[in-house]
Amino acid sequence: MPIVTIKLAKGRTVEEKRRLVKSVTEAVTSTTGVKPEWVTVLIDELDRENWATGGELHSDKFGEGHGRIGTK
Amino acid sequence: MPIVTIKLAKGRTVEEKRRLVKSVTEAVTSTTGVKPEWVTVLIDELDRENWATGGELHSDKFGEGHGRIGTK
Amino acid sequence: MPIVTIKLAKGRTVEEKRRLVKSVTEAVTSTTGVKPEWVTVLIDELDRENWATGGELHSDKFGEGHGRIGTK
Amino acid sequence: MPIVTIKLAKGRTVEEKRRLVKSVTEAVTSTTGVKPEWVTVLIDELDRENWATGGELHSDKFGEGHGRIGTK
Amino acid sequence: MPIVTIKLAKGRTVEEKRRLVKSVTEAVTSTTGVKPEWVTVLIDELDRENWATGGELHSDKFGEGHGRIGTK
Amino acid sequence: MPIVTIKLAKGRTVEEKRRLVKSVTEAVTSTTGVKPEWVTVLIDELDRENWATGGELHSDKFGEGHGRIGTK
Repeated sequence: MPIVTIKLAKGRTVEEKRRLVKSVTEAVTSTTGVKPEWVTVLIDELDRENWATGGELHSDKFGEGHGRIGTK
Repeated sequence: MPIVTIKLAKGRTVEEKRRLVKSVTEAVTSTTGVKPEWVTVLIDELDRENWATGGELHSDKFGEGHGRIGTK
Repeated sequence: MPIVTIKLAKGRTVEEKRRLVKSVTEAVTSTTGVKPEWVTVLIDELDRENWATGGELHSDKFGEGHGRIGTK
Repeated sequence: MPIVTIKLAKGRTVEEKRRLVKSVTEAVTSTTGVKPEWVTVLIDELDRENWATGGELHSDKFGEGHGRIGTK
Repeated sequence: MPIVTIKLAKGRTVEEKRRLVKSVTEAVTSTTGVKPEWVTVLIDELDRENWATGGELHSDKFGEGHGRIGTK
Repeated sequence: MPIVTIKLAKGRTVEEKRRLVKSVTEAVTSTTGVKPEWVTVLIDELDRENWATGGELHSDKFGEGHGRIGTK
């Protein structure tokens, strides 16, 4: 019965979401022994102007690819 | 002072929301003894591509009426 | 597939919780047409020292029965 | 590492959000001693038709400026 | 910057949590391209008397191993 | 009507919470113009074994004072 909520920046394709929920569900079932059909995953997409660290909005602070592998 | 959050699939009319929050508020007050004016209800609507069970997005898995009474 | 989260002050008995989740589930199914087995209800109990309104902790501000019907 | 989520009615400008997250981050760091770069603030904007108190939707109950200083 | 919250029934060991957060973080990074150090995972453990489906508390409805692979 | 939730590591005194909710409420009212009595603040305290970044539990990764001003 686990319920997993993933908050992340807006802008993922449906295909990326498809892989994300599949992969996270497998991670949960393989480490907790819960059956896949009991795992719920919710995606909560946020605008960068609604996300801040260090007191600064990410829309002000970062460019688009921020935080991804291969970027600074 | 209860705060109730209801996550559900996008696509309800304002009239459905009106009845939902009224009915849920009555359910809370009648079973907890809290006054209605102390009950907050928040509705959080999700796209079906942001909701998954069993590792599969609901936008892939289900048709529109899924889960409603009278459907399979 | 609605997921309902109810935040309320700690101190309810199991019997009160039993009636609360039954009643809230009926409120959701009767107004949305979703089947009962698709409705999840989560209770999140908070200490009064972790709840504030008007900038003041409820543990400082209120007595025990606060907000219930029949009290001020 | 605090994570602060602020739910509020939709309709704030980016400039208002900028000041809000700056000010809330300072409030957290000055009272907890946590470094600013460890504080995350998320803004969750809700339509007034998704927010209810006393069993009534805010879109039915209130005008636009409701609850602001200088209004009733 | 993804923030992942996992709600699950109380009763996991620290070692199970260790594997869970490691595995979920890898699932997120491998499918979204976000760097591991940007992924936060929070575990929210619930008593079975605070979790209900179909209007019934899980403490009333289920035995301890419910939902795990190898059980009904 | 803003509702602010603050997730942070367990271990704050009531006096620290008192100052935190007072200060955060003032930050919200001064930047949004909402009246103090309309601002709710909830504190959600997490064990360090329920909080992870980079795939590692904070109970494994950090000592007690981690992240506070004056520490590394």
